Amino acid sequence: MAPILLNVGNESTDYLEHGLVHVKNPHLDFMEEDILYHFNLGTKTHNLPAMFGDIKHGMGVPSISIMMHELIKLLHHARCRDVTLIRIGTSGGVGLEPGTVVITDTAVDSFFQPQFEQVVLGKVIVRSTQLDENLAQELLQCGKEIPNLPTVLGNTMCTHDFYEGQGRLDGALCSFSTEDKLEYLRKAHEAGVRNIEMESTVFAAMCRVCGLKAAVICVTLLDRFKGDQISTPHELLLEYQQRPQYLVSHFIKKHLGLHN
Amino acid sequence: MAPILLNVGNESTDYLEHGLVHVKNPHLDFMEEDILYHFNLGTKTHNLPAMFGDIKHGMGVPSISIMMHELIKLLHHARCRDVTLIRIGTSGGVGLEPGTVVITDTAVDSFFQPQFEQVVLGKVIVRSTQLDENLAQELLQCGKEIPNLPTVLGNTMCTHDFYEGQGRLDGALCSFSTEDKLEYLRKAHEAGVRNIEMESTVFAAMCRVCGLKAAVICVTLLDRFKGDQISTPHELLLEYQQRPQYLVSHFIKKHLGLHN
Repeated sequence: MAPILLNVGNESTDYLEHGLVHVKNPHLDFMEEDILYHFNLGTKTHNLPAMFGDIKHGMGVPSISIMMHELIKLLHHARCRDVTLIRIGTSGGVGLEPGTVVITDTAVDSFFQPQFEQVVLGKVIVRSTQLDENLAQELLQCGKEIPNLPTVLGNTMCTHDFYEGQGRLDGALCSFSTEDKLEYLRKAHEAGVRNIEMESTVFAAMCRVCGLKAAVICVTLLDRFKGDQISTPHELLLEYQQRPQYLVSHFIKKHLGLHN
Repeated sequence: MAPILLNVGNESTDYLEHGLVHVKNPHLDFMEEDILYHFNLGTKTHNLPAMFGDIKHGMGVPSISIMMHELIKLLHHARCRDVTLIRIGTSGGVGLEPGTVVITDTAVDSFFQPQFEQVVLGKVIVRSTQLDENLAQELLQCGKEIPNLPTVLGNTMCTHDFYEGQGRLDGALCSFSTEDKLEYLRKAHEAGVRNIEMESTVFAAMCRVCGLKAAVICVTLLDRFKGDQISTPHELLLEYQQRPQYLVSHFIKKHLGLHN
């Protein structure tokens, strides 16, 4: 659940507006002050360019949709440039050894479609969840360069529920059989899904609309073909959870020209 | 975001199974151990009836869907009886003075329908979000008994997004006009909607399926007809946020036969 915000590359500043984060909301220009409520920040009370203009590493919040709105506005107000957003986190694996790091090729919904449905004023708007292909390939290469860090490229399914929505048999509600569950997971696997989590589609969709380069890297904590509950020892879980961070730090170092 | 769990009433224990919380999942009976992952509790490692069997007040977590699954299973494993769940929290008001407490008549979705759509194994299942009418009336009466606690009964709209989903003009993305927004809010008001939040439909739906008596009480922090941003002074916001708690504590005291 902890996205990392990267601001990589050393673009020319000859063109003052080049690379700035753009928000797609004409109303913002007419507001005297903009209060980022969930961050407790405002454009009048805080000097956002001074506070965040040189931001390189980010933050995570439970509700990624709210966070993304306010983060993107923050990047806009702070005049950040050439920003790359990477969501890192944990997930359930589909046919993978636990501990495998999945770099998302395409974020798909529960119907294996590469889209996110957003309800706006009572109407459904469909947004593409396409991520940056070159960035994904570059991250995959980083994974290969690190020993003992199994890394694959695959589709990531994003659900709105941890239990029924992911075909778990151990929720308070379950109206399907073990065979139904396995059939769904097999279909997901055939559609290229290698892991399941709960944030990737809205993250990808919002980044795409706002022209932000984005990637999703999640480690798998279990193989959903083999079970639903996370019974891996705590120490091992902690090690797994560090793998996406390790991969991203390798990526950052490469971009900064540093060597391990 | 902080649901309160009440276990009121003094039902007879002559019938051992009477009033127990039922889960609707036949698989649970066949599991050697059930791990409530997000609570870090297990049926083998913890004596849940001893720990939670006499629970009267509850807890809140950001992701109410996950919390509800694990809470309902917890109530089941702990053999709690005659449980009433009340979600309390904050919301945006629709045509109400800020600080008004709304007791939810019906929880509705973004299309003003009293239903919650749950995707299960790639199929959409529609669940009713009907709440307990008698409980709502009783809570409304409690509100009337407390001085300076404006309380109304109304429909509550539950959205999946704080910005576009609630017709806010101040998100990172906004493709509609002020007039579009106001028209949507007017339609919502005509459909009986008096406040907007982000948890009520799934809360109501899950309680209903599991036979739990449930209510939703949210205070309004602003009138969405008049704005989108929450600029109320911090002290006043704190006072508003205590109003649903105050109402619920009055309700509990009445049920326990206590007087202020």
